Amino acid sequence: MQDLLPAAARIGARLKARGETIAIAESSTGGLISAALLAVPGASAYFLGGSVIYTRFARSAFLDIPDPLPHGMRASTEPYAALLAATVRSRCGATWGLGETGATGPTGNRYGDAAGHTCLALDGPTGGAITLETGSPDREANMRAFAARALALLAEALGEAG
Amino acid sequence: MQDLLPAAARIGARLKARGETIAIAESSTGGLISAALLAVPGASAYFLGGSVIYTRFARSAFLDIPDPLPHGMRASTEPYAALLAATVRSRCGATWGLGETGATGPTGNRYGDAAGHTCLALDGPTGGAITLETGSPDREANMRAFAARALALLAEALGEAG
Repeated sequence: MQDLLPAAARIGARLKARGETIAIAESSTGGLISAALLAVPGASAYFLGGSVIYTRFARSAFLDIPDPLPHGMRASTEPYAALLAATVRSRCGATWGLGETGATGPTGNRYGDAAGHTCLALDGPTGGAITLETGSPDREANMRAFAARALALLAEALGEAG
Repeated sequence: MQDLLPAAARIGARLKARGETIAIAESSTGGLISAALLAVPGASAYFLGGSVIYTRFARSAFLDIPDPLPHGMRASTEPYAALLAATVRSRCGATWGLGETGATGPTGNRYGDAAGHTCLALDGPTGGAITLETGSPDREANMRAFAARALALLAEALGEAG
C-alpha cells in the first residue's frame, strides 16, 4: 500500500482544496483503493465510503444493483465500471464516484478476460472509463497496479499531473 | 499489506475447508482487512463482499443502518462493531461477518478515544467483540495493527492458532 500513498496524498489535497468528496466501488482491488485514500491523515474530510463488490451478493447488498445485471451487461467491462462509479457516487451523495472491475489472477475470469485486465470508471463533474491490461498473472502485483491506475485516473480528473 | 498475507491465507484455507463464507464491514482500517483476504488466490470461494463504513452516509448507503444510531450507541465501541458485523453478515448472506470501528490517528476521535483505539467484532456460528489499544498515533501502522488483530480474531474463531 505504501507505494500508493504519495498519489493518495496529492488527491486528498486536491479534494480538500476543492471542497469535494469521493466514494469507491471496487472489485478486484479488494479495498486497496479505499485503504490508500484513507491512509492519508485528514481523509475524513473528503472520503465518504467504499464498497468491495466482489460477488453478486455484495452488488445487491451494498449498492442495490439489479441481479441479474441489465441485459447485455457483464462484470469486467467499462459500462459495468461506469455503473459502479455512478451508483456509489449517488448512494453516498459524493462529488465523485470511482468504480473498478477486473481480474487479478492468477487465472483469468469466466468471461475470457486474462489476468491483469481491469476496467476503471469515474463519475462526477467529469467522467469516463478506461481499460488496463498488465499482462501479468501476479494477483497481488495486479491489485497494486490497478489501484495505482485508479488513483492516476482520479488525479488527472482533479487537474493533477498524476 | 504483505505482512497480513500469511494470516489471510490460513484463514482462507480454513474457510474453504469448512465451506463457509465471510463479509466485512470496516471503518478505520479503510479496506485493508478486505484487501488482505482478497489477495489470496481463490478467495472468491469464500469472500462475499466488504464495505468501508467511514461516515454515516456510508453506514446508511451500504448497510441501511439507522441514522442516527440507536439511542446510546456510538461508533468506536464494541456494541457498534457487533452491529456492523451482524448487519454485513446478514445483508451478504455470509456465514461470518466481521466489524471494525476505531480511530487510527494521528489524533483521537471526537468521542475522546485515543488514536490506536479500535473495537472488533465477529458474528456467525460463534461471536464476540474485543477492544484493542495500540497507544500509537501512527495512522498507517494502526491500520495494519488493527487489520492484523482482526485476522487473528477470525483465525481463533475458525480454530486456528493465529
